[in-house]
Amino acid sequence: MSYNEKFMRLALELAANATGRTSPNPLVGAVVVKDNRVVGAGWHRKAGTPHAEVHALRQAGELARGAEVYVTLEPCSHYGKTPPCAKTLVEAGVKKVYAALLDPNPKVAGKGFKILQEAGIEVEYGFLEDEARRQNEVFLKWIEHNKPFIAMKAAMTLDGKIATATGQSKWITNETSRAYGYKLRDIYDGIMVGINTVKEDNPSLTARVEGGKNPIRIVLDSSLDIDLNANIIIDKAAPTIIAMTDRAERAKVSALEKMGIQVLIVDKDEDNRVDIVKLLDILGQQKICSILVEGGATLHGSLVEKGLVDRAYFFIAPKIIGGAMAKSPVMGKGILNLNQALELDEMEIEKLAGDILITGKVKR
Amino acid sequence: MSYNEKFMRLALELAANATGRTSPNPLVGAVVVKDNRVVGAGWHRKAGTPHAEVHALRQAGELARGAEVYVTLEPCSHYGKTPPCAKTLVEAGVKKVYAALLDPNPKVAGKGFKILQEAGIEVEYGFLEDEARRQNEVFLKWIEHNKPFIAMKAAMTLDGKIATATGQSKWITNETSRAYGYKLRDIYDGIMVGINTVKEDNPSLTARVEGGKNPIRIVLDSSLDIDLNANIIIDKAAPTIIAMTDRAERAKVSALEKMGIQVLIVDKDEDNRVDIVKLLDILGQQKICSILVEGGATLHGSLVEKGLVDRAYFFIAPKIIGGAMAKSPVMGKGILNLNQALELDEMEIEKLAGDILITGKVKR
Repeated sequence: MSYNEKFMRLALELAANATGRTSPNPLVGAVVVKDNRVVGAGWHRKAGTPHAEVHALRQAGELARGAEVYVTLEPCSHYGKTPPCAKTLVEAGVKKVYAALLDPNPKVAGKGFKILQEAGIEVEYGFLEDEARRQNEVFLKWIEHNKPFIAMKAAMTLDGKIATATGQSKWITNETSRAYGYKLRDIYDGIMVGINTVKEDNPSLTARVEGGKNPIRIVLDSSLDIDLNANIIIDKAAPTIIAMTDRAERAKVSALEKMGIQVLIVDKDEDNRVDIVKLLDILGQQKICSILVEGGATLHGSLVEKGLVDRAYFFIAPKIIGGAMAKSPVMGKGILNLNQALELDEMEIEKLAGDILITGKVKR
Repeated sequence: MSYNEKFMRLALELAANATGRTSPNPLVGAVVVKDNRVVGAGWHRKAGTPHAEVHALRQAGELARGAEVYVTLEPCSHYGKTPPCAKTLVEAGVKKVYAALLDPNPKVAGKGFKILQEAGIEVEYGFLEDEARRQNEVFLKWIEHNKPFIAMKAAMTLDGKIATATGQSKWITNETSRAYGYKLRDIYDGIMVGINTVKEDNPSLTARVEGGKNPIRIVLDSSLDIDLNANIIIDKAAPTIIAMTDRAERAKVSALEKMGIQVLIVDKDEDNRVDIVKLLDILGQQKICSILVEGGATLHGSLVEKGLVDRAYFFIAPKIIGGAMAKSPVMGKGILNLNQALELDEMEIEKLAGDILITGKVKR
């Protein structure tokens, strides 16, 4: 492993410390290196707080002068809630900046590198770019498309069943898988389910991770069927958004709003249901950068058919139950032509105490 | 790695050279070691030909005197098509025998070890026993239960579909997976499908492996619906067995028999179809020690519900197609209670050029 790779890998690891905490900002890690020694290290912790470079430069202090800086994303060039990092790097007197990725944010997009170069600082980028892109897949989707990154999650048997033919689903997967699932809720901004999942399971959709955060709960409920006593309505564990069409009764909308629930009236699609594409646009504008979709199978089906899924997490238990009537993880009409199947890339396989997690990114 | 383990691992590797070729005999490898050097190595190649120990001792020649022998299965003690290996080892004057497994064959079952010990040869067994058991899972099932070892094979999308909602299934998995599937046909004694698979796909069910062998084709066809022009009837690529109940017309049975097809009349089960348990008993008596079941989903369902599956191979393509009407790999009535799900053990995961193979053994 070259020094370049070693330090950039450290910067990526530092960035990962804030996974799920920086929205709508990217994950960024920075390492200041002098004479091949790390003299400063930092990561961006939360939107509105100092950027990674600032933390790392502060730690380096005077040692930053003439140093090399490894940063996982192009240093910013604009005044936001904090001053531009490119300028801070110039002021610190660093000699060279290695970056993993160019920042596609139109406010930056090369301008950060330009500030550095104009000040005589050498710039190289593209180190561990694939890893950096994977780490910031949520930010990159949101900043380029203004839409949330959509991750679909399912827990199933090896023969592709999410419940027995009689509907038993507690539990298909083991505790380790379920804990991993809670961890995902902790790192995604929002969690989305269809109204039937709420009716059937009355879930709270919380993360149950120590020191974790709960995701914003988003329910697709075209005709506002939700029970006003549902857990996600009354438990105040996290904000809840109900997406409906204009078919619903106004009184119920008011009642929900009085309870602190955000009710979104969204255009109808061709099936007279909430138009998911439009809903995702609205949620993106609300800076919900990432959404974990936990079913049901019909909602998964709609997302798959419309090509809206960015990542899939399939937790597979080493069990076989069979059953023509047992539900599978993605239903709906389905994609009829195999050539049009969603294809996953960058597959990762993880063993979870006997269960298997397969995750991958949908190819575009 | 100890010497013991090193030599036994070599013996297992040698044994594996004949995978799928020794039925109804076990896979056996043997290594003769003198002064920590391999002086003889061999494996059993085919039923009716010399056993592994004989090959290894022949190679060792005079060097076998006072040597240690590593063998993956207890040396046999009975006169079959070849003389008992235990006696051959005694005559060769070996000092010690290490064995991985005791042979559960009632004709052996400790008697081999006894012959050795009575001749003053030291015996130790249980080295790499788990690996040896895995390697001979087919033989162990057949010799202990007189029934074939049943492996269920399915090729599906990540969301558990074996075809799109309109029935497209060519091809879900990639070429590497399909080649692996052919390789399985090469090593299992038989291949079993339901009549609907024959009607829909008119498959030849051959192995297409260079230097390979085709499995005996077995079709469950309760009311003898098979087309006399089906590939497996006319292609002579391998023997074909049709299992039916007594409902069928005698003329068709005769016609098939004249074409060299074996027609088995099997008792009916509670659904008036071929009783699979009874069929497997008959096939076991015919020394068909292992069967690869390639569907359809209904046949898989019956085997799962009756607990008849010994191993499952799921080839998973990194694709998502969805569809409530898309078929899943195991249908039928299904197991209704999650506690009664078939559970797999000894899971192995293999990447096949982008696809994923998950295989495991059903827990008993």
